[in-house]
Amino acid sequence: MADYIESLQVLCEQFARLQGVGRKSALRMAFSVLEFTDEEAERFAQAILDAKRKIHPCPVCQNLTDQELCHVCRDETRDRSVICVVEDVRVLMAIEKVREYRGMYHVLHGAISPVSGITPDKIRIAELLERLKDDSVREVIIATDPDIEGEATAMYIAKLLKPLGIRVSRLAYGVPVGGDLEYADEVTLSRALDGRREF
Amino acid sequence: MADYIESLQVLCEQFARLQGVGRKSALRMAFSVLEFTDEEAERFAQAILDAKRKIHPCPVCQNLTDQELCHVCRDETRDRSVICVVEDVRVLMAIEKVREYRGMYHVLHGAISPVSGITPDKIRIAELLERLKDDSVREVIIATDPDIEGEATAMYIAKLLKPLGIRVSRLAYGVPVGGDLEYADEVTLSRALDGRREF
Repeated sequence: MADYIESLQVLCEQFARLQGVGRKSALRMAFSVLEFTDEEAERFAQAILDAKRKIHPCPVCQNLTDQELCHVCRDETRDRSVICVVEDVRVLMAIEKVREYRGMYHVLHGAISPVSGITPDKIRIAELLERLKDDSVREVIIATDPDIEGEATAMYIAKLLKPLGIRVSRLAYGVPVGGDLEYADEVTLSRALDGRREF
Repeated sequence: MADYIESLQVLCEQFARLQGVGRKSALRMAFSVLEFTDEEAERFAQAILDAKRKIHPCPVCQNLTDQELCHVCRDETRDRSVICVVEDVRVLMAIEKVREYRGMYHVLHGAISPVSGITPDKIRIAELLERLKDDSVREVIIATDPDIEGEATAMYIAKLLKPLGIRVSRLAYGVPVGGDLEYADEVTLSRALDGRREF
């Protein structure tokens, strides 16, 4: 690739470490950097160091933040009696984009996956239980991914919360809005039938 | 996007400045950085600064290098009597990958484009003429892109070199190998017909 220009090769390798970046894209990005001014390159390098240094999990909900509490936990207008449990921050961001949900979150930072060695203690379930101790939460909405790991995690948490007398719900399964029924997979269709609602 | 976590937002913007990186990819990359260890993040930041600081155009051929001369100009086994003129380093890399061409290069760092204000003096044509002064070069192969700017640049250089008595050639136009003739555009087909060769 660019293996005869060592510092370009090193930069390519760094870009290629990023999720979803292949060798060709990495090379293109490295060339972009060479077209930066010195100040721009310094700003880029500094942004990497700053993000890494400043961003940490919110001590309450494990969402990412560069302040003491995350923007959701800081927001006093939000409904503290509902917690939506998500696997990662990107899901939280997706739900926030809808601007409909006004409760709190809990970010697990993963899903239970015995195959990959991710046992319940490896994700932030203990922190969730801790939050439920003071009886102020009346509902936990489990919004883990609709895949095997997400399902297993949802089941596990639901089982833990049952004895606490908290309402536990799960995001509705069904056919995606705007999708073409012809192409919906069987499991989704079956779930959509199960969950059908009367007009 | 991530506008409530300022340092994440800044990092996203930096990634989005790279060629071919959209907002979604930038966010995905920024999250990747957060998963780096501190040492990994530092190595990434350093790679950016190093590449920017160390890489410069080769004083002979304008190819990029982090040493005194580029890897082609350093290679004493190469044929110094042929120069292949390319628009940018990526084309040089593509030709090098074929491992067939054993001559030298000259990187213009652009193509003539009056519309974008890129006049002949904005690209490295003067440096090319300088190299031809000592009569050691017998052929210049013009491998600028097969688009309007590349064509204009090729014509311009060919006209300049004619009086010097140097052989000037242009990469062959034709249908790409492995392509489907049905989908070849008219101009390419017409050029392929013009350039047809007897068996």
